[in-house]
Formats: sequence, C-alpha cells, structure tokens
Amino acid sequence: MISKDIIKNIKSPADIKNFSNEELEILAQDVRKVLVDTVSRTGGHLASNLGVVELTIAIHKIFDSPKDQIVFDVGHQMYTHKLLTGRFDKFDQLRTQGGLSGFPNPNESEHDIFFAGHSSTSVSSALGLAAANAIDNSDGNVVAIVGDGALTSGLVYEGLNNAGRTKRNLIVILNDNEMSISTNVGSIARYLAVIRTKPEYVKTKARVESALKKIPLIGNHFANSIYNAKHAVKKIMYSNVTLFEQMGLNYLGPIDGHNFEQLCDSLITAKMYDSPVLLHINTVKGKGYDFAERSPTQFHGISKFDINTGEPIVSGTTYSKQFGSFMTNLAEKDERICAITAAMSVGTGLEGFRLKFPERFFDVGIAEAHAVTFSAGLTRNGKIPVFAVYSTFLQRCYDQIIHDGALQGRKIVLAVDRCGFVGEDGETHQGIYDVAFLNSIPRVTVYSPSSYEELKNFLANAIYKDENIVAVRYPRGAGRPLPQDFKSSYETFDVYGDENADVSLVTYGQIFSDACKAIEKLQKNGINAKIIKLNRVKPIDIGAVKAALDCKHIFFFEEGVRSAGVGEAYALRLLESGYKGKYKLTAVDDCFVKQASVSYLLSKYNLDTKGMVNTIIGGLKA
Amino acid sequence: MISKDIIKNIKSPADIKNFSNEELEILAQDVRKVLVDTVSRTGGHLASNLGVVELTIAIHKIFDSPKDQIVFDVGHQMYTHKLLTGRFDKFDQLRTQGGLSGFPNPNESEHDIFFAGHSSTSVSSALGLAAANAIDNSDGNVVAIVGDGALTSGLVYEGLNNAGRTKRNLIVILNDNEMSISTNVGSIARYLAVIRTKPEYVKTKARVESALKKIPLIGNHFANSIYNAKHAVKKIMYSNVTLFEQMGLNYLGPIDGHNFEQLCDSLITAKMYDSPVLLHINTVKGKGYDFAERSPTQFHGISKFDINTGEPIVSGTTYSKQFGSFMTNLAEKDERICAITAAMSVGTGLEGFRLKFPERFFDVGIAEAHAVTFSAGLTRNGKIPVFAVYSTFLQRCYDQIIHDGALQGRKIVLAVDRCGFVGEDGETHQGIYDVAFLNSIPRVTVYSPSSYEELKNFLANAIYKDENIVAVRYPRGAGRPLPQDFKSSYETFDVYGDENADVSLVTYGQIFSDACKAIEKLQKNGINAKIIKLNRVKPIDIGAVKAALDCKHIFFFEEGVRSAGVGEAYALRLLESGYKGKYKLTAVDDCFVKQASVSYLLSKYNLDTKGMVNTIIGGLKA
Repeated sequence: MISKDIIKNIKSPADIKNFSNEELEILAQDVRKVLVDTVSRTGGHLASNLGVVELTIAIHKIFDSPKDQIVFDVGHQMYTHKLLTGRFDKFDQLRTQGGLSGFPNPNESEHDIFFAGHSSTSVSSALGLAAANAIDNSDGNVVAIVGDGALTSGLVYEGLNNAGRTKRNLIVILNDNEMSISTNVGSIARYLAVIRTKPEYVKTKARVESALKKIPLIGNHFANSIYNAKHAVKKIMYSNVTLFEQMGLNYLGPIDGHNFEQLCDSLITAKMYDSPVLLHINTVKGKGYDFAERSPTQFHGISKFDINTGEPIVSGTTYSKQFGSFMTNLAEKDERICAITAAMSVGTGLEGFRLKFPERFFDVGIAEAHAVTFSAGLTRNGKIPVFAVYSTFLQRCYDQIIHDGALQGRKIVLAVDRCGFVGEDGETHQGIYDVAFLNSIPRVTVYSPSSYEELKNFLANAIYKDENIVAVRYPRGAGRPLPQDFKSSYETFDVYGDENADVSLVTYGQIFSDACKAIEKLQKNGINAKIIKLNRVKPIDIGAVKAALDCKHIFFFEEGVRSAGVGEAYALRLLESGYKGKYKLTAVDDCFVKQASVSYLLSKYNLDTKGMVNTIIGGLKA
Repeated sequence: MISKDIIKNIKSPADIKNFSNEELEILAQDVRKVLVDTVSRTGGHLASNLGVVELTIAIHKIFDSPKDQIVFDVGHQMYTHKLLTGRFDKFDQLRTQGGLSGFPNPNESEHDIFFAGHSSTSVSSALGLAAANAIDNSDGNVVAIVGDGALTSGLVYEGLNNAGRTKRNLIVILNDNEMSISTNVGSIARYLAVIRTKPEYVKTKARVESALKKIPLIGNHFANSIYNAKHAVKKIMYSNVTLFEQMGLNYLGPIDGHNFEQLCDSLITAKMYDSPVLLHINTVKGKGYDFAERSPTQFHGISKFDINTGEPIVSGTTYSKQFGSFMTNLAEKDERICAITAAMSVGTGLEGFRLKFPERFFDVGIAEAHAVTFSAGLTRNGKIPVFAVYSTFLQRCYDQIIHDGALQGRKIVLAVDRCGFVGEDGETHQGIYDVAFLNSIPRVTVYSPSSYEELKNFLANAIYKDENIVAVRYPRGAGRPLPQDFKSSYETFDVYGDENADVSLVTYGQIFSDACKAIEKLQKNGINAKIIKLNRVKPIDIGAVKAALDCKHIFFFEEGVRSAGVGEAYALRLLESGYKGKYKLTAVDDCFVKQASVSYLLSKYNLDTKGMVNTIIGGLKA
C-alpha cells in the first residue's frame, strides 16, 4: 500500500475532506515515504516532520485553509502541509535555489501565512490574526502549532499571556514530542512530563462530570456541595488545573497525535470554543522511520543521508566541531570556563563539553536572551561564560548584549556559529546581520577567523586577552582552502599579496579564500593587488586602514549586510584619514537572501573569486 | 518622630541589624520622607520606591549584603537600598551629572550587583550568580526582587523556567503592587489577582499541616492516607498549587509587604530552602504619600513636582503628546489603524487613543518582542499597526523586526519615542542605538523629524506612503526652536543656509536646532556654511549626498552611536560618489552615556551649538 499514488493527486486540502480514517492512514504512509525519500536527497528537517504527519492531515481535514489560517511555529515542521497544499510536484526541489523553501513562505502559497524560521513566534502572530478578525467581526479560525521546545522561550509565554484574555477562538496546538532540538530543558519540560502521563484529560473529565451530573440535585445547599465535590474530584484526580488553564486558556488533551479519530474529534471540539484553547497533542519525533525515531536529534536538521543505513553521506570536521574541541581543551585547563547553549548543544559542537563538564555546561532552552543575562551572573561571580549560538539566533539577545553584557564591563564570550550565508535554510537563517548589529554596541570586540587555527587563536584571545564582550564568528560547515604561502599573524589584520600594489582588496572571514584566488587571477591579467584581511573586524585596527591609504583603488568584499557593516565602517575611517582614491563596497544590499547553496549565493552576490575579479576589473576600467 | 535622624546615621546595612520592629518603622518613615523630598526636587521614580521601603529594609536586616547578593529588577525601585548602603549623603544629587544614578550601579557601591534599567532580567542574572556559587560551592544567598509587571515579560519566564531546576537557594521576591508601569495586562495579571485574595498561604498551610501531623500514625497504609489527605486538603483549600510551583519553585505567600514581622519571618523561611523559592509580597505602590497612592502611574516616573499639591512643576506639550493626538486624528478617519504599546500607554501619549478606540488599542505588557510579532498578525489581516515604544526598549525586538517585520513585506509602523539622549535616566535608557540597529535591517525606512509638524507629516508618510517597516523616531520632551525662515519641505532632506557654501554641516533630528544657531555664529566669524538636514535617515537620499559633494569640508553631527550610524552610512556614499574633501563625524563613540541633563550631554559630546562651532572652526584650521 505504500505508494505515492494518493499524495500526488492531492492538489489542495479540499481533496482530503471526504477521506475515511483508513484513507487518511494510507495518505500518512505515502507522505512519510515522500518525506524520507526527499530529505535523504536534499537534506532538511526530518524527525520533526515525521512526527506531525497525522496532525497536519487532520488539521487540513477539519479546518478550511486558507480561510482558516494555520500558523506553524518555527516552520521547519510543515513539509506535510506543503505536500497537502499543491506543492507535491516541486517537493523534490526542497531547499534548493528556485525550488521550495524549507520553511513557510507566503510567496509560495496562500496557505503559508507568515515567513518563519525562528522559534516561538506563532502564538503572537496568530493572536494578531485573531485580533484583526475580531475587529472586523470576520470569521475564519486561527490555529497555531507549537512544539514543546518552543515553550522554553519567553516569546511564546508573552503570546500566551496575551492570548488568555482574548474572547475569540484561537487554537494553540501544543505538539509535544518531548524534546526541542536537543533534549528539552527546564521546569516546563518536567511539568509536561507530568501531564503527559495522566489519563486522557478531556475524556476522563467528561466521564467524571457526566457521572456527577446524574446525581439528583436537592436544593441549593446540596447543589453547591455537588459543585464543590466536582471540583474536588477534578483536583484530586488531575492533581491540579494545568498551567495553561491558569494562564487563561482552555486545556484539552493530551491526545494521541498519531490517531486520526482522536485528532479529528479534539480539533472539532477545539473549534467550538469562543475563547483560546490549548490542545495538547503527543507525537513521536521521527515517527515511522526507525533511524529517526531512535536518534531524533541527529535527524532534526540533517544533510543528505543513506536511506537504508541512516548514515550521513558527507561528514568530516567543521568549524563547529573544531570549536567544541577547542572548548573542551580550554576548559580542562581552566575551571572558570563555562559553556552555554540555547538548545543547540549538538549543532554548536558542545556535546563533548557537556559530557565532560556537566556542572559547567548550561543548556537553557530556546532562550537566547536569558542565556546572555544568565552569563552576566556567571561572570559577575568569577566565571568565564562562553555562549555558543548561531548568528541568526544571536539577534534575539541584542538588548541583553548591550545592557546585561557590554554595559557591565565584564567578560562574556560569544561564539557565533553559522555566520555569513547558511545556504539551504534560506532567509530566516542567514548569518549576515551579526557584524552589523554588534557594530552598534560599545565595547564589543569581534573576530572573524578564516581557518580553524585562527578560530583557536582568536577564541584564546577572547577568553584571555580582550576585555568585556568578545565575539568570535565563524561560518557553517568546513574550512576553505588557503594558499600555502599564507601565514596568519593572528593579529588584528594581515596583508597578503603585493604589498606595494595600487589595488587593495579588503575582506574578512571565509571569503578570504576566494580573495586569494582572485588576486592570483588578477595577476595573470596583469593587475597587481594586495589583500587586507581583517581578523578583528571590530574595532578596526587603524593600521589596516593605513595599509590601504596609498592605493588608488580599494575594493571591499563583505559576506554580510552592506548597511552598518564593516565595509561602511572602513569607508568612514578611510575618509577621515584623508583617502582620495576610489572605493567600492560589495555586500548584501537591502534584501533578504533566499535558499540556495552557499557557493551559488557567493556567486550571486559577487563574493566568490569570479565576482571579485569582475568587480575589480570593472572598477579599474570605470 | 518623622525626621532624618535615623537614616542619616546609617552607613551600611550592618547598622540596622539590631533594630527592633519599632525602630524599623521609624526608619521606614524617615526613608519615605527623604524619598518624597528628594524626588519632588530631582524627578525620578517615586511610587515604586515608596512601595518597597519596608521590603528593602527587611531584606537588609535578614540578609548580609554584599556577601548575599541582592538584585533589583529594572532597578528603578532601589532608592531605599541606596539610602541603606552608605549613599544618604549623595542622595540629594540623585539622577544628576556626577551624582547618584537612578538605577543600580556597581561603580557606586559594592551592594549594587548589576547595572540594570530594563525589566525582567533579575531572575536570569541572579540564577547566573547562584550557578557560579554552586560551581564554587561558595555560600552567599542570592535574592532577586521582581515586580508583578515584569511577569508579563518573556525573559522573566525564561529565567523562572531555568531557575526551577537549580538545587541552590535562590529567592525570587515577587513585589506585587498590582500594576506594572501602566495597568498590568494579560492572564498573569488576572491570575495574580486570584492568588492575592487567598488567605495567607504560608501561615494557613503551616497550621493545617501541623494539625494533620498531630494525628497518630498507625502503619504505612494509614500514613499514606494521611499524606494523601494532606495533599487533598491543600488542594481543596488553596484551589490548586500555584503556577510558580508548577514551574518548580517553592511558593511562599502572599505576605503583607508593609508589615515588618511578616516580612522578616518569611525571608528567614525563604532562606532555609536548598532550592528556588518564590516569595509573594503584596505592596502598595506610592505607599505613604497620598498623591502617589492615588495616582501611582502618574508618580511612576515623574519630573519635579510640588510636594504639597502633587502637581508637576513643568508641563506643556511634548513629542509624545503630539504623537498621541496625531494618532487619534488619523484613527478617526481610518478604521484600520491600531495602536500597540508595551506597558507604556501614558508615556507614549496613547491614553487618548486608548479611551477613544479601545477595540483597536493593545497594551501587551512588558513584551516588546510579542508586540512586533503580534503586529505582524494584525497587518497580515488588513490592519495598520502602529507600535509606540521607547527607543531603548525597541532594542528588545531586533530579531522580530527583521523576521516577523521586514521579511514579511507588510506595513508596520514603529513610533520610536525617547530617541537620542534621555537625560537623567542614564546609560540604560539612552535612545542612541535605534538608528544604528535599524540601519542593519533590509527594507526598513526611518524618519527623524525635527519639529511637531514634521512628526505629523512623516507619521502620515509612514502610514500611507512608504512600504514595509517604517520607523518615525523623535526625542523625549518638547520640540526645540527652529529659525523662522526655515520651512520644511517634508521631503527626504532639506538644505538650509548658504547653498553655495564650501562647508556643509550634516545632521538630523532635534539637534538641527543647534545646527541652525551654529551656522549663524559661524557666519559672524566669516564662515559660510549650509546645513543638510536629513529627514529620512534610512535610506539616505543620494540627493542629500550630492548636495554636499562639492564642499571642501563636511561635518556630520549625530546624536547617536558613531559606529553603524547615519554618519558612517553617509561617509560610504560620499566615498563611493568620488568625494575628495575632508569629512569629520561627531557622534557618541564607543562608550555608555551616564545620567545628566540633555543639554549637558549635548555639550559634552560636542553636539550643541558651541560644540558644533568649535568642531568646525577646529576642522577648518587643521
């Protein structure tokens, strides 16, 4: 029965409205097959998508998208939704340039309500939809699907706190798979573990209450006693009302998230309220693909893998792995060093650290703002906190870096992973803002290594040499080849190439590799150039400006946003130093960067060898 | 008995350790007298400080600061703490240049643990302190004091979620005064209202449990019954365990926050736990000063006032009031316009809007990130959300402005109040980062009006003319005088002064007023200059660059951070346009700006008339 016959004929959610539960089961099997097949070839998020196949199908059976608006939190778990909303034909181009985004994308489909990629926004945005509907008195249900991991984030709490007072139907589905990206942390996780083990709350509650209702009522006094008795029973049986009820939402669940009957019944019930509902659904992450069920963290976000063995096809070391091993070595010699992660202990390479120094390892959940402020406490009492975080998620603690970080004047190290283009994850995950927003914060130092050895050295600088907030930023994936004759000084900048050249190419980070090839090609074209490679991009060493001051042409290449970036800061210093030559900055200019391979993106934005060579030759001609 | 005799002799918390409750009462009266006296002269936060007089005294009696570390959330309610920790003598210089900060300041006293000024950080930072203590196995208690308003913020929830699993004493005192800055909002506020009305939880619980313990135990079975009975009684009597207990904290309270006996007893109890404790204290905001008790919002953050009438000494219109009235007018004509505030409906001037259009007014609590993401939902379903927020708090939604805002490509208006120097609130409240961090976000437009009329026009542009995210930023307080012959074009930039001058002064915002006086003075010194006044600072109109291109000297003056600001962006455009003259940018360079009057700060950073004139004359000579 496992075939793609059913799924390939579904052009819109309307096509499944009349499916029987048996047909839904077959559809679910089809969907799982497509998911595993596709992701094994494209890479992507697998375990989370396998967990919500039935849930997504049930939602589309019961609700009427796009009139009813379905908001997927984070959005990496909406592949089934894509398959059910007319995108089966393009699904093999998932996460590729020109193909489907791995996240919700309103430009792809009217069924995708928001661009999303960062956790815990869905309750807030769904509440906004419902509030607008309330003003217009228009109908249309709003459904937000949130993972239990998202509950560790403050934003979802802000959303729930505000949702609790709405008089409008708003369904928050808690997709409880007992973990966020790594293993779930904190009290909320423990708390969910308690509810999960209870008998089905909805059904039992209904049964108990209906039994109580059958007792004949004799007068007010007895009625009150019954009322109290009902509550007492409820309290004793269920230990207490749930946290969600205390926050003002109606609580339904927990429901078996792989049982269509229960799913559809509970969705119909949830739809009937004129107030916010939290529907608690238990799902199994990785459901239906053995390897993923057994190792859901490995199969959360995964590269291409062998479908029969579950083994990744490409492997090898990466900046993240190197960072993890440097951290373990440093922590062995220095008991003050602590590692902090926001639900990314695997992704950031900190698993070894976690196992070796559990007492100095803190996974705070999807709570980047807390991570920084918590680090402020650690450093105040003598520790050296190193917060490892993806560039795109560091955006979430901008305020805390200013006030709980830089203003305090104490050492916090930010190990900023996935900087620059991240490739297939697309516009919500690009690491192209970190330098720009860190530029705006006083007393912050930023390093941008171009090799593992530089990462090692600059991390040591960050911990032992520099003061206050120090960020070390490095790209996703593996180091890129550098010329054999390049020896890093490990100082604030390096000059490579013809020191007396009239043309300077200024850059930093991984594209130094492209720049080296570019000056080689330029030389073959009779153009002598030097590279000024910034190792420390904030503050810019004035020596790195003086090194270019006599050049007639300066070309700055930046794998990041043009506005507020390093190329702009460099321009100011040139101008204030009296530079009279020509200057051109090539960077990402006022746009969002879609999914595509990193090499495609470097080429598109003229940041690869060819782009650099063409930009320089063109600039010299002008 | 009301005198300053006791308080003036207290040099450190040690001096109150042996005070009787009667002496503590007299001390509290003294403190209140000092608070009202001082704030009536200096301005500052009054109502919140009056509410925690007894609480702060009790904490210093029971705990041993600085060995025990006391962390005040937000920090605007720690005046009593300052008085008890050796700062009485300097207290009349509160919030003045060279005097005491209105917020915690570790440079002032070893009793101040962190700089703070933004809400809801204390649980996270206190947990960091406790975690460091745990690693070192050092003693010292950690106490965080959090207002109920802070519970509307996600950061405090992230802190509590992580705190719940610590095995260390950590005392979170919930200072429940039934409001945040405006009136408290959301489910959590309603929930607290319910707990508040219960009998004193701690005492009653102790009484019930002690009664149960007196029942003789006969065998295991009966013991279990007793155990269950105790729990059942607890559940029935107290309706359910509190939300805080569900989050893993021990809950104590609520306690009368103006009764020394109860306060000291409960603090001693809280100290005995080897795990986190939430101690719920009820206080009255404004306690002891009639006018403040009756109008706590008015007396939250207040300017100088008449102590006998409670009336502010200075009044008159402000940018905030003007904004509020423009909003009401616009919303009358356009039903799509919604106003959003994060607990600042009074401060942002939106009270009139709230009263007139309650269904389109949303106070989301201290939840700036939610405010933006919620706005994304409103705009997706056809509304025009205008989020009014202080510049310093806008920092808290940087990530949401990128992803839930700009990336969506829909209209959200940010009305950014308190931009530039804010004066007496000091380093945690300066509005000097907004332009820089907004610079880094694609598709964002930023206006910086220099008058009420410009604010009105640019707000209309933001709502009707421009697309995507549009910020209109304006300063604290009143508009500054402009020359009678200046007529704003209400376009992207204006040129004022001698158009053919060889010297350009480029600036934006309120210091255009100073610039006008500066060119007048320069003319008297025989120097002709023109002003290029940027109305839209992002994107910079290339015309505003060309207007200066022929000048030999360009001086940019910016009331904001130098790095990543407009002056840097302007420099890049000049350089790329082939500018060969001299350029000098004057802005706030890599430092935090302490409390002082706005005029003092403008002078200190060379952004007033005199500073501009001197900078230009010096630059021309060089």
